[in-house]
Amino acid sequence: MPSHSFGSLFKMTTWGESHGPSIGVVIDGMPAGLEIDLEFIQTRLNMRSAGRNAYVTPRKEADQAVILSGVFEGVSTGAPIAIQIQNQDVKSKTYEAQKKHLRPGHANYSYLKKYGVFDYRGGGRASARETACRVAAGAIAQLLLAHHGIEVFAYLHALGGVQNTLPSSHRCVPERDAISSSPIFCADQALEAEMLAALEIARQDGDSLGGVVEFCAFGLPAGLGDPIYEKLEARLAYAMLSIPATKSFEIGQGFEATRMHGSTHNDQFLSGAVTAETPVTNSNHAGGILGGISTGMPVYGRVGFKPTSTIAKPQNTVDLSGHSVKIDLGTKGRHDPCVAIRGVPVVQAMCALVVADALLANRLAKLNPNSGELNDP
Amino acid sequence: MPSHSFGSLFKMTTWGESHGPSIGVVIDGMPAGLEIDLEFIQTRLNMRSAGRNAYVTPRKEADQAVILSGVFEGVSTGAPIAIQIQNQDVKSKTYEAQKKHLRPGHANYSYLKKYGVFDYRGGGRASARETACRVAAGAIAQLLLAHHGIEVFAYLHALGGVQNTLPSSHRCVPERDAISSSPIFCADQALEAEMLAALEIARQDGDSLGGVVEFCAFGLPAGLGDPIYEKLEARLAYAMLSIPATKSFEIGQGFEATRMHGSTHNDQFLSGAVTAETPVTNSNHAGGILGGISTGMPVYGRVGFKPTSTIAKPQNTVDLSGHSVKIDLGTKGRHDPCVAIRGVPVVQAMCALVVADALLANRLAKLNPNSGELNDP
Amino acid sequence: MPSHSFGSLFKMTTWGESHGPSIGVVIDGMPAGLEIDLEFIQTRLNMRSAGRNAYVTPRKEADQAVILSGVFEGVSTGAPIAIQIQNQDVKSKTYEAQKKHLRPGHANYSYLKKYGVFDYRGGGRASARETACRVAAGAIAQLLLAHHGIEVFAYLHALGGVQNTLPSSHRCVPERDAISSSPIFCADQALEAEMLAALEIARQDGDSLGGVVEFCAFGLPAGLGDPIYEKLEARLAYAMLSIPATKSFEIGQGFEATRMHGSTHNDQFLSGAVTAETPVTNSNHAGGILGGISTGMPVYGRVGFKPTSTIAKPQNTVDLSGHSVKIDLGTKGRHDPCVAIRGVPVVQAMCALVVADALLANRLAKLNPNSGELNDP
Amino acid sequence: MPSHSFGSLFKMTTWGESHGPSIGVVIDGMPAGLEIDLEFIQTRLNMRSAGRNAYVTPRKEADQAVILSGVFEGVSTGAPIAIQIQNQDVKSKTYEAQKKHLRPGHANYSYLKKYGVFDYRGGGRASARETACRVAAGAIAQLLLAHHGIEVFAYLHALGGVQNTLPSSHRCVPERDAISSSPIFCADQALEAEMLAALEIARQDGDSLGGVVEFCAFGLPAGLGDPIYEKLEARLAYAMLSIPATKSFEIGQGFEATRMHGSTHNDQFLSGAVTAETPVTNSNHAGGILGGISTGMPVYGRVGFKPTSTIAKPQNTVDLSGHSVKIDLGTKGRHDPCVAIRGVPVVQAMCALVVADALLANRLAKLNPNSGELNDP
Repeated sequence: MPSHSFGSLFKMTTWGESHGPSIGVVIDGMPAGLEIDLEFIQTRLNMRSAGRNAYVTPRKEADQAVILSGVFEGVSTGAPIAIQIQNQDVKSKTYEAQKKHLRPGHANYSYLKKYGVFDYRGGGRASARETACRVAAGAIAQLLLAHHGIEVFAYLHALGGVQNTLPSSHRCVPERDAISSSPIFCADQALEAEMLAALEIARQDGDSLGGVVEFCAFGLPAGLGDPIYEKLEARLAYAMLSIPATKSFEIGQGFEATRMHGSTHNDQFLSGAVTAETPVTNSNHAGGILGGISTGMPVYGRVGFKPTSTIAKPQNTVDLSGHSVKIDLGTKGRHDPCVAIRGVPVVQAMCALVVADALLANRLAKLNPNSGELNDP
Repeated sequence: MPSHSFGSLFKMTTWGESHGPSIGVVIDGMPAGLEIDLEFIQTRLNMRSAGRNAYVTPRKEADQAVILSGVFEGVSTGAPIAIQIQNQDVKSKTYEAQKKHLRPGHANYSYLKKYGVFDYRGGGRASARETACRVAAGAIAQLLLAHHGIEVFAYLHALGGVQNTLPSSHRCVPERDAISSSPIFCADQALEAEMLAALEIARQDGDSLGGVVEFCAFGLPAGLGDPIYEKLEARLAYAMLSIPATKSFEIGQGFEATRMHGSTHNDQFLSGAVTAETPVTNSNHAGGILGGISTGMPVYGRVGFKPTSTIAKPQNTVDLSGHSVKIDLGTKGRHDPCVAIRGVPVVQAMCALVVADALLANRLAKLNPNSGELNDP
Repeated sequence: MPSHSFGSLFKMTTWGESHGPSIGVVIDGMPAGLEIDLEFIQTRLNMRSAGRNAYVTPRKEADQAVILSGVFEGVSTGAPIAIQIQNQDVKSKTYEAQKKHLRPGHANYSYLKKYGVFDYRGGGRASARETACRVAAGAIAQLLLAHHGIEVFAYLHALGGVQNTLPSSHRCVPERDAISSSPIFCADQALEAEMLAALEIARQDGDSLGGVVEFCAFGLPAGLGDPIYEKLEARLAYAMLSIPATKSFEIGQGFEATRMHGSTHNDQFLSGAVTAETPVTNSNHAGGILGGISTGMPVYGRVGFKPTSTIAKPQNTVDLSGHSVKIDLGTKGRHDPCVAIRGVPVVQAMCALVVADALLANRLAKLNPNSGELNDP
Repeated sequence: MPSHSFGSLFKMTTWGESHGPSIGVVIDGMPAGLEIDLEFIQTRLNMRSAGRNAYVTPRKEADQAVILSGVFEGVSTGAPIAIQIQNQDVKSKTYEAQKKHLRPGHANYSYLKKYGVFDYRGGGRASARETACRVAAGAIAQLLLAHHGIEVFAYLHALGGVQNTLPSSHRCVPERDAISSSPIFCADQALEAEMLAALEIARQDGDSLGGVVEFCAFGLPAGLGDPIYEKLEARLAYAMLSIPATKSFEIGQGFEATRMHGSTHNDQFLSGAVTAETPVTNSNHAGGILGGISTGMPVYGRVGFKPTSTIAKPQNTVDLSGHSVKIDLGTKGRHDPCVAIRGVPVVQAMCALVVADALLANRLAKLNPNSGELNDP
């Protein structure tokens, strides 16, 4: 069953295994005429790169994106944009031991049951290496969004037990600069210090931590998202839960909303809703979406990552014959103690891909696309 | 942009507005040869029906499902199964006032911005009435699953601040009978009393409450779900966030997992994983899914509903000219104080639709579908 | 496998069997804001209706289209448009005999092999009755096209051995009035007389004839159709070969082009191509399409129908046990001697559906949809 | 609008321009467990290669297919199979002149109108070079089909006025060896001589010829193809008309059927239809398909190619400013005088892709896939 494409109108198809010669993505649906800024794509890839600092896996990949098609004289032509990234630091031998054991929290068991075969080298297709392709495609989506005045962000909201306690209103005005200069994409310096301390303890202990990434999108016009099954929040949830290691999703107030009253949760419309000025509502508990369609207020939400499965501690499991074994998969201090950190640019990319798709879809909503303001009917 | 279909191989397309003559669903992809139990479908629809008790909207609909095609002599033929449900209790006049005001927490604003027109009568297409079609289609999916030994459940996990505190292990063995006999689909009598008390206060106050619905699926073989973008949890998240009023989703330990260590969160494989007996793992923090593919352990998760937007309290908003107005949309004691209750059969239906789709997709995974057990390679 | 939907952005899903209670179509993707002219839809359905004259099957169906959703105050809302048509003249008993025999040229054998069950009453889902839904949806597509100045036609080009010998240039300016007043949708009176004579002979003989339907579309802007796999001619071929009893398709000069030289077949560009006036080329052998994308010249082509399979002559076949039998399926003079006639409005509908889809898709081609004339780069 | 993917369950996505660094295809949906014979893929690509003999374009490409993913230890893993082919003989300078002129019979005009930009070097994405990717993917589809006992062929049926006059019955038993040893894929030596003579005249004259390619598929079980819009012949027509330069399609007797009587055209069922032996019918006018679903008889049809647009004769056209110009695009004796020849392996590939897709789809038809023989109901 084909399952390696994402998106309806702005569509990416990815391929490649962790330890194959290269990985890649084909973007089909980019309108013609957009300047493609290669440097921007590379910057996004570098954010995700392993080896970035002490708190992510030391595997080193240059992750150099090469565009093979769809761009002519620096501009998109409407043809598929194919991007290829070479795999460089492939040490398959070190993974040979994994061949015969079921790895706790990993996909090798379920892939084996599904396919009868499994490219066990480095997790094969199930490896998080695949997310580099998402980031490359997401960068191109961000270029399209920027042309339409839409900006997309993500940052580390919580790590282990350390949680951002900034007020919800703050969530929509993240300090862009603080985030990008933080080694763990954290918007607040005090919080960052606390998180780094927790990380260091886990790293020394050979253990791992979970985390929460928050995403925001600004500048969306009202009207993005399609009703019923293609609601903007449904597409976002789908996108985020397709990222490896994610287990939860919230839009707007999320689970907190389940403990609120309607009279408090309902955002009140302001005259900006009609005059096309912001803010549209006096608060934004809804996360900028009503009935699956954007209101013009910022869209924001959170994605929960489980703790990294690969830890540097011995674990009980069984081998392919069903015998109990104890395995040790990592080297203390060399494993990736929290995947949520590298998850930040991936969450951002998926958010951009969903919004870009919705932006194109919205061209199809009305008979006369440029008409139809609120007072029209 | 077409957005009224759900599913890839087991696909439903729905149509109809709250106050049109009827609503309906077309199911395309049901394999030929399944006995279609009409009574079962009707039972599911009755669970969702308005007017069921004092705690849901008093709008009365028989919600009688009529099958118009795709079934011959009681058996599916492989042709599309079209189901039609008449709308009966349509009082459009009472909604006339909503025509000119932006309703807080509602879709009329975003629909107007997107389409330039809006069928304001009872919320039109955006009404939760559409979920009756999901329940009908979900019932047919449940019949398909039952044939393969798979059972799908849902129940009310939390309402307002009242929360189920049963241990996580319990979540996978809900008391089926208690749930179906409870007026609010609650598995525990003491909890039910507490929830009903909270509901009554909100009802008297003209206010509303949010809630959390938990879903579980038992009997899934290992191998359901497709990797990367069609992960089983991604499809579930997508399905659940497409339900009106939902704002959050968790699979397995969900957000709780973000606060756990890898050494604790990782479920340990048992020899059952190889011998095809259950349990496959010693715990089930993962919610029965690894790498997007089912392991054979129960699949479970939670969906958060915001408090009902329509409340029986005056609210500040603006009209279509941008003037501030105070509107009162409900009649105290006649509104639906918590949509999560009626959301229970809808969550169950969406879960069944996702699993049925994955079940069919899994026929395509291997060259020789009946081979490929774990020791094969 | 879902196979009852057609179209990507302007999408229809059909359901219903020949002898079920009703048939229907759901159109998903119609932009909001179009006036829906019910009378026009009915006029198109009447063209296809059985019992129209002596040369089509005498089964009588009012084929009254009822719109159940998606239209509010006469205008499309962007929601799915569901249309239902009741079945009235259902005489299942007369078909009982077909239950046990393989009908030559019919689908009952292949459906039985595929599904293991078959709704044999009147051909079930395989009946040409399904094409009424195509005509209804096609009529709505025509309304959308008319809004954009595009007109779509079809007429009977050949019947049995009687062939239109009008010059190719003529093909693009059919006499609209002559066609609609002709009982067999023939543009030329002398030809019509010849065709009717051939039909009468076949009818008396209990036999049937094949035919060719030509379609044309005028007023397409340059740029419709998407390259590589969604070429406009590929979508048209797909659409036409999905009509029951069709066996062949040509665009432009079609098979005749295989016998031409490049120097003759190539249409020469005129300055109209640049100035956005017509004609764009001095001839139109290409049928208005280059590289899968419309040029602005009329699009035209032909669809071949095999002779009706149900004839009023005894035929040799076998029953479900493999025994040779002779069956007689029709009553002389009451069968439908040439399905191509009723195929005319169906071909027209499918052409309209394909062009409407391409029209919407073209909104997605450029970064700035309203820019990009030929001299821009 | 994404338009560079083909297929539903066995799906390919292609990318790359004629004069970019490379072209490629991603195959998503191949079941796990198939041995991938690289040599076979290369053999198919060599058939299509330019420079094969005097009668095709002298552009020389090694067309070496490199598999980058989806195959592990020689066997498909269920992951996407990415294939890359380098472009080697790229002489962009020679195409500079084409930048400002509308090329008769070419896509540069329609692409420019659609996208506002055009990668004019060698036709960019519109170049027939893209078909190398189809052939590579088609070869993998053929490996899948071979595993199920299905064989797919194609050969040159007509060239210019020279036509195969072999009886229709012969069409289903082509001489495989004769075809592959013929420089123009012709099954008959006398015919080949005649065709080569016609080709030589056209070549000397700087002109070009059209042609007809016939395809056949043997060994299909009854039941392949899905009804209504995914009929096997509809998918084939769609596939074939997506090949550059094609203008027509026939299945079975095709246009000839429009001149036959029902009593002659109807194939009569034999007891083999029930006993699962062949032949199923006494004749095969239907081309092995009834109601869109295969009967078990060979599937065959024809595809018409227009004469090559690029000729070595001066042609009248206009430039981008609308001024009349005379252009000369080719060098006599170095152009490709009949694209139908190189079209043979492409037609074969597209046929294989369609049948492979239908083969997988058929796993979804019945509740119990292995039951359901004809007498079951």
